[in-house]
Amino acid sequence: MTNDSSVVISPLPYHDVEFRVRYAETDQMGVVYHTNYLVWCEVGRTDFIRARGMSYADMERAGIGLAVSELSARFHAAARYDDMIRVRTTLSEARSRSVVFDYVITKADTGDRLVTARTALISIDSTGRPTAFPPAVRALFERS
Amino acid sequence: MTNDSSVVISPLPYHDVEFRVRYAETDQMGVVYHTNYLVWCEVGRTDFIRARGMSYADMERAGIGLAVSELSARFHAAARYDDMIRVRTTLSEARSRSVVFDYVITKADTGDRLVTARTALISIDSTGRPTAFPPAVRALFERS
Amino acid sequence: MTNDSSVVISPLPYHDVEFRVRYAETDQMGVVYHTNYLVWCEVGRTDFIRARGMSYADMERAGIGLAVSELSARFHAAARYDDMIRVRTTLSEARSRSVVFDYVITKADTGDRLVTARTALISIDSTGRPTAFPPAVRALFERS
Amino acid sequence: MTNDSSVVISPLPYHDVEFRVRYAETDQMGVVYHTNYLVWCEVGRTDFIRARGMSYADMERAGIGLAVSELSARFHAAARYDDMIRVRTTLSEARSRSVVFDYVITKADTGDRLVTARTALISIDSTGRPTAFPPAVRALFERS
Repeated sequence: MTNDSSVVISPLPYHDVEFRVRYAETDQMGVVYHTNYLVWCEVGRTDFIRARGMSYADMERAGIGLAVSELSARFHAAARYDDMIRVRTTLSEARSRSVVFDYVITKADTGDRLVTARTALISIDSTGRPTAFPPAVRALFERS
Repeated sequence: MTNDSSVVISPLPYHDVEFRVRYAETDQMGVVYHTNYLVWCEVGRTDFIRARGMSYADMERAGIGLAVSELSARFHAAARYDDMIRVRTTLSEARSRSVVFDYVITKADTGDRLVTARTALISIDSTGRPTAFPPAVRALFERS
Repeated sequence: MTNDSSVVISPLPYHDVEFRVRYAETDQMGVVYHTNYLVWCEVGRTDFIRARGMSYADMERAGIGLAVSELSARFHAAARYDDMIRVRTTLSEARSRSVVFDYVITKADTGDRLVTARTALISIDSTGRPTAFPPAVRALFERS
Repeated sequence: MTNDSSVVISPLPYHDVEFRVRYAETDQMGVVYHTNYLVWCEVGRTDFIRARGMSYADMERAGIGLAVSELSARFHAAARYDDMIRVRTTLSEARSRSVVFDYVITKADTGDRLVTARTALISIDSTGRPTAFPPAVRALFERS
């Protein structure tokens, strides 16, 4: 989904995070409102980065942000209030100024697949301009 | 994005809705949090349907819901707090049990393009099962 | 709700803003999730300030923020998806470094009272520290 | 905060839950948007009820809902993205058709107090009408 110099990570590493559906996340259909799955992808991404040894909060303090540039999702089945959710986050591509993550959201106790999603993110500096990842961040994403 | 019996509407009709960015919609990057653009797409879709002569609230009361089955978005530029936003919603496909909408989100005063998005929705009954649109709803989507 | 040097505005001025309930704002009880009424209070407050001749966005760009220090609300009746909502915002107190707003949220077409709320806000500088309102902002709040 | 037949629980029992601040919960002030603390209170309340042996999801399936009737909060200090948060939920009053919960939200690692809040909730049936708690739910709230 990006055009800059390519480094494809293989084999694909992943990270899991689990949490319960909040009441605030439901809508009047009685299920989770669809955009909340994408908030959960960010929870998965944040936890993935922390598991690699740097918090995204630290990245931002170091002047590097990740801005979502593209997003796609397929909604297979609905999550409900109080369900225990698992988000599996996989780093699919890491380039000099962008990364792509894939997400599989399942119901933790049954393994039922709820949503699959992908986000492309670009590296931006504190003024919002695209910039190359600094070496420490690049090392983080390239480790497999 | 769907496989059921096809009716493609042409020429593509659209509907515009405008509103201001809320403070609650921003994040610590100083811009709108990315999933909120997708909430705005639903605002656009709701208003599109109302402009066709039926409210989505009435559709639900008549036992027909629209569940998002697929979604994609590209983020071109960021909206900021208090910006006046325009969402242009276009009905791109209408089939017997699904519809596809496209959205262009712009800054209303400058016309700057912020986000382009597409959602596929399927018709579900009050138990959440896919069902064909009843004639009144089908007429709504097929009118061009 | 605050202790600093006192200026009580009288008679109480107010400002109305109207908008429709979004689907994302409902929960599985079939009504608006309760914290969203408080987001609407902020919409009312923002519009009140704009009606006084300065946008809150401009206030922030001038280095002055308003941070909610206290909040209370009573929930009388529930708003539903697609209802047209009216938020009446009243400036109840204006002091050297704080303001208090009252809100009455009604269903616009029937006038039914849904929620009454009050927020106290303190003036903070760009580092988050309490600070006195500059003269231009103070003039804004004291005008009756 | 309620007027029905009174049962005050003593000594006050409480329950703690911890989680991290999500990026989506921040706003452009660089801190958590104020209404999100009230969503966290609901997370605390849900977990409190589960720790008593019944999930709130089960309560709703049994036809009993809890609707927030009053809410108040004081904001002492701001939570930031990625902070580990602790919500201590205390059941302060339990009556025949209402309950009151108190919340203390702290930064988990330092114990710094961020927000104190209180919510009164009334028991409603599946049509939204106030109703007395059934014995199983009443037993849940009265156990000390």
